Amino acid sequence: MSIKGMMEEIAKDAKNASRQLRKTGRRQKDEALERMACNLLQMEKDIIEENKKDLSLAADRGLSSAMIDRLTLDRKTIQSMADGLREVKALPDPVGAVTGMWKRPNGLQVGRMRIPLGVIGFIYESRPNVTVDAAGLCLKSGNAVILKGGSEAIHSNLILDKALKKALLETGMPGQAVQVIPSTDREAVNLLLGMDEWVDIIIPRGGEGLIRFVAENSRIPVLKHYKGVCHVYVDEAAELQTAYDICFNAKVQRPGVCNAMETLLVHEKIAVNFLPTMIKRFRDAGVEIRGCPKTLDVIPDAKPAVEQDWPAEFLDLILAVKIVANMDQALDHIEKYGSNHTEAIVTKDYARSRQFLTEVDASVVLVNASTRFNDGGQLGLGAEIGINTSKLHAFGPMGLEELTTTKFIVYGDGQIRE
Amino acid sequence: MSIKGMMEEIAKDAKNASRQLRKTGRRQKDEALERMACNLLQMEKDIIEENKKDLSLAADRGLSSAMIDRLTLDRKTIQSMADGLREVKALPDPVGAVTGMWKRPNGLQVGRMRIPLGVIGFIYESRPNVTVDAAGLCLKSGNAVILKGGSEAIHSNLILDKALKKALLETGMPGQAVQVIPSTDREAVNLLLGMDEWVDIIIPRGGEGLIRFVAENSRIPVLKHYKGVCHVYVDEAAELQTAYDICFNAKVQRPGVCNAMETLLVHEKIAVNFLPTMIKRFRDAGVEIRGCPKTLDVIPDAKPAVEQDWPAEFLDLILAVKIVANMDQALDHIEKYGSNHTEAIVTKDYARSRQFLTEVDASVVLVNASTRFNDGGQLGLGAEIGINTSKLHAFGPMGLEELTTTKFIVYGDGQIRE
Repeated sequence: MSIKGMMEEIAKDAKNASRQLRKTGRRQKDEALERMACNLLQMEKDIIEENKKDLSLAADRGLSSAMIDRLTLDRKTIQSMADGLREVKALPDPVGAVTGMWKRPNGLQVGRMRIPLGVIGFIYESRPNVTVDAAGLCLKSGNAVILKGGSEAIHSNLILDKALKKALLETGMPGQAVQVIPSTDREAVNLLLGMDEWVDIIIPRGGEGLIRFVAENSRIPVLKHYKGVCHVYVDEAAELQTAYDICFNAKVQRPGVCNAMETLLVHEKIAVNFLPTMIKRFRDAGVEIRGCPKTLDVIPDAKPAVEQDWPAEFLDLILAVKIVANMDQALDHIEKYGSNHTEAIVTKDYARSRQFLTEVDASVVLVNASTRFNDGGQLGLGAEIGINTSKLHAFGPMGLEELTTTKFIVYGDGQIRE
Repeated sequence: MSIKGMMEEIAKDAKNASRQLRKTGRRQKDEALERMACNLLQMEKDIIEENKKDLSLAADRGLSSAMIDRLTLDRKTIQSMADGLREVKALPDPVGAVTGMWKRPNGLQVGRMRIPLGVIGFIYESRPNVTVDAAGLCLKSGNAVILKGGSEAIHSNLILDKALKKALLETGMPGQAVQVIPSTDREAVNLLLGMDEWVDIIIPRGGEGLIRFVAENSRIPVLKHYKGVCHVYVDEAAELQTAYDICFNAKVQRPGVCNAMETLLVHEKIAVNFLPTMIKRFRDAGVEIRGCPKTLDVIPDAKPAVEQDWPAEFLDLILAVKIVANMDQALDHIEKYGSNHTEAIVTKDYARSRQFLTEVDASVVLVNASTRFNDGGQLGLGAEIGINTSKLHAFGPMGLEELTTTKFIVYGDGQIRE
């Protein structure tokens, strides 16, 4: 079959499966999730064997050891995928909840019922565990999912697909609820992005290049974020110890992720007190400092920051530091260089905490807490499928509820429109 | 200036205005809405004069009398635009509401705060009153709006823009919060659809052709519906009088709109009792009937329906009628031919009312009520800017709340991520 024919079949099958999923209750979905977990554990040997094929090809292609590390499946990672499915199983089912119901003057009772989105196209790179995470979240929220992983993980993804599909069929669910595209042809992605007749949303996860490609070529709405250029603003009224701990955590705890701090903004009145100790702590942890001219006055041996440092997502132990004359300057800087992702203020001042929370245009805005909390699990949504900074549909981390929408339901007694 | 330069300036100005709007409270927005209403009434003469230019060009171009009717502004329509603005003024401000707040085990307090989307691109045809409606709704929800109306209404739209802008400036608001594109060049639309750097969503309103053009060419998410192919399913357990009234209302009260019924589905057990009286009532109102073969058995002189009648949005006094063997057949028909817009069942049966509400995939699903209730005002949302069947962001009629999104706000006491 042509790749076009194959993709159309996959999309139509997903659409059909989504119709059945729409009316599947929690019990059956949870049984399928449990069976998926069991099957992964039972098929451990086969999974590791197929994964070895990917690893050996990766070695031949000279992939970096970090890449190979992310690609590797072993007993521990398989157990952790199964645990992840069981965590999703334990989360409440968002589907069918009626959020609010009101009565109209003519007696009509109107409410909003939560329903699945339909068919989700999920496009991602590298880590095969994402295949299982995404499948679990989509199934629980009643959506069919079409999964397009990286070509370097194709053997792993296909054996995982087998384990998941087996679980669906064993529990009376449509096998096409979860489909890994059995091809490494990039044309499959192009075709998927044009299938707005059958696919309701696209979620890409990976590097900025992949995400830009998807956003620029999709005819289907895309929930995405390009990058996280996150700031911590240390206000003149910051408690010093709190500021040290939050800034250090935001930069150093896991520098390679999108909610890590990239630029530190410091009020000039606190800079001389705050910066020397802070910068020493950063440098002890191996962080390179790139400072604005005023920062260089306080930390003369810092590297001067250049214009490109302000919008940069370093994803590394590098930090840009800017001293601002007041909070308005900090807000202007965030407006200009921020990525609407995560922004934090450290302050003891009531009015400025309110102003920052209200005015900053980011998916998560924090007072006296680390940027690292922009995460579905940390904010209490349960597992997350990604973070959306496009504002549409769901702004911020997306959990099960964000994979649904609501329709209006109306109970009448024969009402007609006058 | 080139059209590209002009559009970029408009988009950047809108973005800047949206930043100021974000922090503008209800009182100031309501004052601006009131001023807008006053200015329209005060500028009545100028508005009617500019409108006459459009009308005279329309006559030269040989536009239909229906089109000219929709284009015409007089004392009554200007008063009604002013009334519309005052209705929006009276609606609650959605911005700043915190919908839910919870505490995490580490003490973080997490909530969702309602915020404006940012910049809305609104593309529409004909009626100049839409310019004022859209401007009012966008302003109240804290969004800047870029308006691109039909070329046949350009003089009317520009004078309305002048009245609105004057009100913004008189009340200390950014004048660029509302901008009518001062050009009839279609290239302006193409440029607008590519400005994803500054524009957050696009809402098109008009014929299916316009909407398909926008959807296919936009790099910005589009909230839209192509058409409304709405069904009423008369169940075997329908109360006959209720069914007559609802079906008649759904088809005849205003046949040219998207929430009018296009196909009537009738359970075969009730067809012989129900259809003759129903069809007589339809025919007395001038409705042409196109029936399936079984319908022709009951109504021998009906026109036979052809395949193209089932997915058709007639927007006219034409009705397709199909007799189904059971509700599953009705559900299958709706799944295949429906447009996810509005679907209704007439029944006295409890189980089937629940099944219909749960399983039908449409933005509004009604039991024992007319499809004509799919409307923001009728459902209690206040005014509406349009209906979205794309499922993303807001499924169904979109009022003020649907022109906003939520960001997470987090109150901490120095929490860091372990």
